[in-house]
Amino acid sequence: MSTFDQQIQQAIDGKTKPVGSLGTLEKVAFQVAKIQQSLTPTLSNPTILTFAGDHGAAKAGVSAYPQEVTFQMVMNFLNGGAAINAFCQQNDIALKVVDAGVNFDFADAPHLIDAKIAYGTASYITEQAMTAEQLQACFDKSAAIVADVAKNGCNIIGFGEMGIGNTASASLIMSALCGLPLERCIGRGTGLDDEGMHRKFELLAEAKERHGDISDPRMVLQTYGGFEVAQICGGMLEAQKQGMVVLVDGFIATAAYMVAAAIEPALKDNAIFCHTSGESGHRLMLDTLDAEPLLDLGLRLGEGTGCAVAYPLIKSAVAFLSDMASFESAGVSTADSA
Amino acid sequence: MSTFDQQIQQAIDGKTKPVGSLGTLEKVAFQVAKIQQSLTPTLSNPTILTFAGDHGAAKAGVSAYPQEVTFQMVMNFLNGGAAINAFCQQNDIALKVVDAGVNFDFADAPHLIDAKIAYGTASYITEQAMTAEQLQACFDKSAAIVADVAKNGCNIIGFGEMGIGNTASASLIMSALCGLPLERCIGRGTGLDDEGMHRKFELLAEAKERHGDISDPRMVLQTYGGFEVAQICGGMLEAQKQGMVVLVDGFIATAAYMVAAAIEPALKDNAIFCHTSGESGHRLMLDTLDAEPLLDLGLRLGEGTGCAVAYPLIKSAVAFLSDMASFESAGVSTADSA
Repeated sequence: MSTFDQQIQQAIDGKTKPVGSLGTLEKVAFQVAKIQQSLTPTLSNPTILTFAGDHGAAKAGVSAYPQEVTFQMVMNFLNGGAAINAFCQQNDIALKVVDAGVNFDFADAPHLIDAKIAYGTASYITEQAMTAEQLQACFDKSAAIVADVAKNGCNIIGFGEMGIGNTASASLIMSALCGLPLERCIGRGTGLDDEGMHRKFELLAEAKERHGDISDPRMVLQTYGGFEVAQICGGMLEAQKQGMVVLVDGFIATAAYMVAAAIEPALKDNAIFCHTSGESGHRLMLDTLDAEPLLDLGLRLGEGTGCAVAYPLIKSAVAFLSDMASFESAGVSTADSA
Repeated sequence: MSTFDQQIQQAIDGKTKPVGSLGTLEKVAFQVAKIQQSLTPTLSNPTILTFAGDHGAAKAGVSAYPQEVTFQMVMNFLNGGAAINAFCQQNDIALKVVDAGVNFDFADAPHLIDAKIAYGTASYITEQAMTAEQLQACFDKSAAIVADVAKNGCNIIGFGEMGIGNTASASLIMSALCGLPLERCIGRGTGLDDEGMHRKFELLAEAKERHGDISDPRMVLQTYGGFEVAQICGGMLEAQKQGMVVLVDGFIATAAYMVAAAIEPALKDNAIFCHTSGESGHRLMLDTLDAEPLLDLGLRLGEGTGCAVAYPLIKSAVAFLSDMASFESAGVSTADSA
């Protein structure tokens, strides 16, 4: 431990509570204090960016929902009617919706950011989902968005997604990067039945067969990723550079994180894993990353909802470190005096 | 399902999200809607009552901390320096501290309620912890406190505790009510080492030997309970009568709940289990109750901190049910139309 790390731990242990009795909250407090290099860290202007994009493969039937639900849900975000709106409003989190590549032309709207690459990716079943240029454009655009959010005083950022078919995309990314067979990486997404699951498996196996083994993280993303997945990846990398706390949401956002962390391992120092998704592959993905998420509520909605719901727990971690009295200042006897 | 239960479920399923995708939050939303018999439930004037009491057995050495920490921590609560203060302030929860029987005379303070039964219980190692009259006084006093809180518009209440030695008390209650051997009900409390654990086990085994098998829930409480544990029990029973949502905290509060639910099984309809404690017997206790807590963060601090930290999750559950658009109102296609 560095000297400052020791100071953080002493500050935590000196609070009027049995040592270690705030469990995971103590780990989170330590992490945030370390990121901010402060014994009294603060969370300012929390922001969630929800990236939306369409997937060429969605038309082949890898999802329970039709593709137009992507743009319909973006409209729902902009009108304030989705789950992410409810949770962000509850917790005073700013929400911005990024059109990373939806198959729809949106009118300007106050919380919409236009970062459209194209009207959806190509289908990985027959070709690469995007070109190298498109991938780079994803990274550049989302880095600029995150830099802008940081400039506005945000030091904690969550990344959410919306894109019919993107659970399938995340499964392919997981399978490639973790070197795991497809069966262990596939789940029901938004609610496929057994027949739908079988069709999804066949389609994804076909894609994997076509593209062969890929290990380079950027190439994995280019081959299987949605534009929204790639933009989350680029956004996380920029957030790490900016010294922000990075909130990692569910299955799809964690797939984006895996690519980002493969590119820049230091991202892990800034990442808080918000929850274990109900999507079946997520727990395995988290185990592979040696991640210990805050919540396990069976959420499988995406949008950044896991980040928004977990955010108050991070506030609790910061609050105890900043606000609690020490044994000394409060005149409370310690265990040693028993 | 009753017709109204069906209406609640339809309201939840009609929101713009895949059916079931908010996991446990959907169960909580259902429960709160059912308690309040409303499709748009609200949480008003959330309150945590932290009951403090001393234990005769503490002097024999069942805790890592000396007995005076009980009153010192009450002073810390009143001065705003404890973890429960930080979390209640963060989440706009009113905190009241109840002197159920601390071995100290407190001066009047704005958030302190005097419900003192005596200056600590008798030691269960040599006699019953309290008399039948004292137990009844615990029930009466805490019922009056909770009725008063309800009168002030609170419809969601959490119960916390502070009392050096009360983990041991809860272990004895658990062992008696669950019919489980003491070994499976004992943990390290605030942080006993191996030697301390051994001493605690010997002392509690002696107490169990003295009092024999007890199954009547009131008699279990009278024999082993702290005044704070008994007042929590009585408070929960009143909260159920008042139609409030009852937040159940960790190991000790759950022991109080076990007694209360044995007296009034309908309490379960109103109870939300906030977290699985790091105290080793708690998970088993929760399993016995078939309870599915919201959080598993290794908290083992008591005070009501698990309730305070989990409260925003319940707010999230209520928020999605009240605030989200339906598929119909938002014009979003459903899975059926895929």
